[in-house]
Amino acid sequence: MATAQMARGTSDSIASKSSKDDHPNALGNLPTASPSNAAYMNENGQTTATKTTSDMKQTRGMLGLHPQAPIDEEHDYAEQQEWWWARTRIALREPFAEFFGTFILVLFGDAAVAQVLLSAGQTSAPGADGYGNYQSINWGWGDSGAYLNPAVLFTNCVLRKLPWRRFPIYLIAELLGGFVAAGVVYGNYISGINSVEGPGIRTVPPSKTATAGIFCTYPQEFLSTSGMFMDEFIASAVLMFVIYALKDDSNKGQFSASGAWFPLSMFFLVFGIGACFGWQTGYAINMARDFGPRLMSYAVGYGSEVWSAGNYYFWIPIVAPFCGCLFGGILYDVFLYTGPESLMNQPWFGAKDLTRPRAAIRDRVEKQRGDGLV
Amino acid sequence: MATAQMARGTSDSIASKSSKDDHPNALGNLPTASPSNAAYMNENGQTTATKTTSDMKQTRGMLGLHPQAPIDEEHDYAEQQEWWWARTRIALREPFAEFFGTFILVLFGDAAVAQVLLSAGQTSAPGADGYGNYQSINWGWGDSGAYLNPAVLFTNCVLRKLPWRRFPIYLIAELLGGFVAAGVVYGNYISGINSVEGPGIRTVPPSKTATAGIFCTYPQEFLSTSGMFMDEFIASAVLMFVIYALKDDSNKGQFSASGAWFPLSMFFLVFGIGACFGWQTGYAINMARDFGPRLMSYAVGYGSEVWSAGNYYFWIPIVAPFCGCLFGGILYDVFLYTGPESLMNQPWFGAKDLTRPRAAIRDRVEKQRGDGLV
Amino acid sequence: MATAQMARGTSDSIASKSSKDDHPNALGNLPTASPSNAAYMNENGQTTATKTTSDMKQTRGMLGLHPQAPIDEEHDYAEQQEWWWARTRIALREPFAEFFGTFILVLFGDAAVAQVLLSAGQTSAPGADGYGNYQSINWGWGDSGAYLNPAVLFTNCVLRKLPWRRFPIYLIAELLGGFVAAGVVYGNYISGINSVEGPGIRTVPPSKTATAGIFCTYPQEFLSTSGMFMDEFIASAVLMFVIYALKDDSNKGQFSASGAWFPLSMFFLVFGIGACFGWQTGYAINMARDFGPRLMSYAVGYGSEVWSAGNYYFWIPIVAPFCGCLFGGILYDVFLYTGPESLMNQPWFGAKDLTRPRAAIRDRVEKQRGDGLV
Amino acid sequence: MATAQMARGTSDSIASKSSKDDHPNALGNLPTASPSNAAYMNENGQTTATKTTSDMKQTRGMLGLHPQAPIDEEHDYAEQQEWWWARTRIALREPFAEFFGTFILVLFGDAAVAQVLLSAGQTSAPGADGYGNYQSINWGWGDSGAYLNPAVLFTNCVLRKLPWRRFPIYLIAELLGGFVAAGVVYGNYISGINSVEGPGIRTVPPSKTATAGIFCTYPQEFLSTSGMFMDEFIASAVLMFVIYALKDDSNKGQFSASGAWFPLSMFFLVFGIGACFGWQTGYAINMARDFGPRLMSYAVGYGSEVWSAGNYYFWIPIVAPFCGCLFGGILYDVFLYTGPESLMNQPWFGAKDLTRPRAAIRDRVEKQRGDGLV
Repeated sequence: MATAQMARGTSDSIASKSSKDDHPNALGNLPTASPSNAAYMNENGQTTATKTTSDMKQTRGMLGLHPQAPIDEEHDYAEQQEWWWARTRIALREPFAEFFGTFILVLFGDAAVAQVLLSAGQTSAPGADGYGNYQSINWGWGDSGAYLNPAVLFTNCVLRKLPWRRFPIYLIAELLGGFVAAGVVYGNYISGINSVEGPGIRTVPPSKTATAGIFCTYPQEFLSTSGMFMDEFIASAVLMFVIYALKDDSNKGQFSASGAWFPLSMFFLVFGIGACFGWQTGYAINMARDFGPRLMSYAVGYGSEVWSAGNYYFWIPIVAPFCGCLFGGILYDVFLYTGPESLMNQPWFGAKDLTRPRAAIRDRVEKQRGDGLV
Repeated sequence: MATAQMARGTSDSIASKSSKDDHPNALGNLPTASPSNAAYMNENGQTTATKTTSDMKQTRGMLGLHPQAPIDEEHDYAEQQEWWWARTRIALREPFAEFFGTFILVLFGDAAVAQVLLSAGQTSAPGADGYGNYQSINWGWGDSGAYLNPAVLFTNCVLRKLPWRRFPIYLIAELLGGFVAAGVVYGNYISGINSVEGPGIRTVPPSKTATAGIFCTYPQEFLSTSGMFMDEFIASAVLMFVIYALKDDSNKGQFSASGAWFPLSMFFLVFGIGACFGWQTGYAINMARDFGPRLMSYAVGYGSEVWSAGNYYFWIPIVAPFCGCLFGGILYDVFLYTGPESLMNQPWFGAKDLTRPRAAIRDRVEKQRGDGLV
Repeated sequence: MATAQMARGTSDSIASKSSKDDHPNALGNLPTASPSNAAYMNENGQTTATKTTSDMKQTRGMLGLHPQAPIDEEHDYAEQQEWWWARTRIALREPFAEFFGTFILVLFGDAAVAQVLLSAGQTSAPGADGYGNYQSINWGWGDSGAYLNPAVLFTNCVLRKLPWRRFPIYLIAELLGGFVAAGVVYGNYISGINSVEGPGIRTVPPSKTATAGIFCTYPQEFLSTSGMFMDEFIASAVLMFVIYALKDDSNKGQFSASGAWFPLSMFFLVFGIGACFGWQTGYAINMARDFGPRLMSYAVGYGSEVWSAGNYYFWIPIVAPFCGCLFGGILYDVFLYTGPESLMNQPWFGAKDLTRPRAAIRDRVEKQRGDGLV
Repeated sequence: MATAQMARGTSDSIASKSSKDDHPNALGNLPTASPSNAAYMNENGQTTATKTTSDMKQTRGMLGLHPQAPIDEEHDYAEQQEWWWARTRIALREPFAEFFGTFILVLFGDAAVAQVLLSAGQTSAPGADGYGNYQSINWGWGDSGAYLNPAVLFTNCVLRKLPWRRFPIYLIAELLGGFVAAGVVYGNYISGINSVEGPGIRTVPPSKTATAGIFCTYPQEFLSTSGMFMDEFIASAVLMFVIYALKDDSNKGQFSASGAWFPLSMFFLVFGIGACFGWQTGYAINMARDFGPRLMSYAVGYGSEVWSAGNYYFWIPIVAPFCGCLFGGILYDVFLYTGPESLMNQPWFGAKDLTRPRAAIRDRVEKQRGDGLV
């Protein structure tokens, strides 16, 4: 019993320590398996929570995740962990959340475009109005610090001390989510696509009957490559700048304390970006939203034009969001952010770390270990 | 007096036990008649609350409802129960709520379509923009666990331990709500329908002047039956998946604690489904929204084509939502849900129950009785 | 000093008694002049709050208003009351609020129609999308219990025990607000109207260039009088039904506790009614929104057709909302409301009062006096 | 240590005194550098917070800003202040916030118009629907009391005792924000503008291919100068009137206590103004939104017509908002406001101050000093 209490004690202290901490890089509010119900003890009268949790921490740590899975403290998952799938579900919680979050995002986004494109000419279709719902469900499983967007993830690693080891598994989950969602949309609208393009014919803009735009973005023809890059760069920078403004505790009096406003704000933000920067390149601003579905459209037979269209435009929604989000984040931090974790709030913007890179990395990992982040 | 206090004590302990519990299957926060005002004692100086409440519990239990009616604790209904209608109102509270909720839902939905359809060609009509309000009022009388949709009700019975005995009376209330609302819309727009179709003429798509689409959904012509089913299936699965995500305590930090965000989120969700999956089949995703009004349209004279149209499409909005919602709920529970009440969180997904079905049912009812659910 | 403390004590006890009470008929949360700052004492070292407040209560009572003006308790208005205008402002607070609330409502509503009507044919005008904002600002100065609509006011008097003596002054304020707002809109758009109709020409639908629709509603031509009445009746009934559902404490767990959601819900509701019942008659559902501006349009020269148009349609937006709101309120109370103040929650729907009307009125006034409402 | 505690004590007392105070003129909730972490002491074991903060207060006072920078109390910026840029960031916090707030506002606004204008004729562009997002992000850094609008700033100086010394630096920041944002939009859409107007050609309405409307407003041709002025005047008055209603503590029970609703309400308000008063002159209602971008459009080569168009209309969006906002604020205060700081709540509307202007200014500054505002 003592060990069980100790385990609970540890997690409680983590929870209380992080109770005011909702920066993306500090995975606060992490309850653990609290075996409050005596029924969950095993045959020997001992709780199994401690051992299982300890194993779990190690597994999750190896995957690059926070040792504690972000699970509601009311959900007693001690018993569940005796079954292999339940352990998997807990170990991979954030990647699963990222996968399904991106899946739903792209499912809604691509289906909305499909509906608009395929129903063009049918005046009774209410589809065009729904375009704004493109990213309406910002699931906000913000625990992962990724917001379903690799470029936001990347910027949080650079500027908000989100551990880099989270990057790979989140990135994979997001790309897979976009890839699979595009496949589901294709399957659902295949007869509609056939009736527009003709059976077996799949074309890419600027073809008149092109339906490839359902899956990923294609730029306007008059744009030069630098113009495309600029457009995506600015939209991404605005995205990141506003996310950081919304997350800044110094602005918090103006927004809701509980973070409940964040998803709604994100909706207005992305809707606004779509309304203001959505015409020239289609406002990808998200590699997971663009590259994954593009790969799927290639896989189902749209041909190599998905890569070559727009003078090999495809790399722009990959590279520009990373550059733009980083720039937007730096802009916010340089001029407005006062939190100590940003590089911008260290003398010379943390540049002294560049002169001793190995020491800097070691210090950083040490500090993260101290904060219980890795 | 002691019994009255005991009754209050019982209900209070239920209330406190369930105070953190807002899963659809646990009808928490159930206040009872608390005769705090001395004026409500009867002539003999005794409160009548105990007896009445006890009778009421039995009546409600026989109807399959939770013994305690979900009524605000400030509303002292002890005295009211002396009149037969007041007793009826309390006994049938959730069915009445389901009826009126579905009634308003379908009233708005069908009237919006009527306005769009009948005013087509009148450019000043602002109707088309209002389509998004189709289900804008998600009344959210979530106490009933049904969300005005039999398929959601069904999935909650399977995965969230909502007692199956609630199913029949909720289903009936929802179907009646949709049926009656369609009648009111027909009555209100009858002259408009006459002016479009001609007096006494009522047609079903693909007729050019068809107005049957006001009442229920009809699929696009190019769709095969499997395509129709797939479309409704995916939309229903997404609906259920997102509802469970919104209701999951583990995601709660990201949403409002009080549940106030739920109706707004539902609005965005259903609006989004309409924008993304609304074109091919009209996103019924709800038997109460489709079957009830279809029956009414048959009753007022649209002819047997309401059943035969689209190659007897009518059964798809009945069957596909049940399959889709169940699939979406299972998907969420398998990959993300950690609450103990889901079958997915028992070894082998609760399959061991299948080997001893009678014992499983007995256990379940026992447990519900223990939780005060039946 | 003792009197001052007493005065404060009285108002505090009122405030605490009504702290949980936000029914429209119970004007809760009424702070008074609390002379907490010594600087506000007069030359004789005595606070003037008591006397002034006492006079004020009498004045307000004579106007039919609640004795206590609904003013923030931080606002010390003891000193202000020494000046006649400040006294007027406090005495007439709710009528002023009703006036300006209706003024803004009609200003936005009529200006939105003006913009849509006058800019028709100019494709760059974003006006049509804004129609939904017709009543976007539901000021929600709900203290007055009237919601800027005489029919809602009326229903609250019947069903929620709002004292009838409030009715006249609120009604006058609302009608004046609509009348003046229509004049401001006319002045602002007079050159636009001249450019559409021709200078000095003012016409009423069905004239092709009619601009009278800017100010008040005109029905579609195919509608019979009973059809018009039905349309307004249903829309008003839905309005009242949903308002009561939103205000019902028994539904409160589903909505925000603080009432902050009410204005947003009202926006969705009225927007939805406009989308669903706005085409046939223009969804007046509000005498203040229709009759006041109609009078103004008559005054500025649209001719007697403003009254005779649509077979003397003008009386329908006056009478139908009263009938519809009352019906909607009764419907809600009969089937769902459990609060004790509704007539529907008294044996035989309070019909026994009809057999002794004078006694019933006397009892009612007595009770209101006891609650501090008059 | 004693000095550090004293400093904290001082700031705490300021914070507690202003904790209920969110009027724009009282810069409440101002935390200071609280060196709660021992690691932030310097080598001599002394905290540096006191001295630095004292210098900072002086610097900020000289700039006309509140002595305390509005920074989250969790952000310990004592150490940061040792670096010159961090000091600059804290000293210029509100001007930076005003700059970026106006920048984002105009960036979204102008980009939205650009998208609508340049994509006209491309039916698949969802731009027109997004117009409503024109001012969707009301950043709400309301600490500055300016709301990204010089006319609101001005009215707060007159009626809400915001110190006049804040006016210049806020005004400069807002104008710069609008000017720079217009430049970014021009750079982003330059190829689109070229494809519409032709390379090197830049025209102003009423030219058929004019793109100057992307940057600032141009009136409809039929309007007289007084009509233009009236339109902007009314829209500005409504803006200010509603802002004051939303900010009035006496209305607070109806809105959210935390101010979280304010940004959303502002969005509905500005969207509504655009829908109702946006057609005739384009609803500038904001000098920063109109004059800054107009200057930029002149700088990039649209010619002197940006000034002469519409009979030298350009001065109207500068002057009319000041007059309109002041009128709207006075209207609210005369009829509804009961807070003591408004001139309208002093005998004869504070007119006695006019008879002794120097004494009035001296009194005002004294009082502000007492409140810690300067």
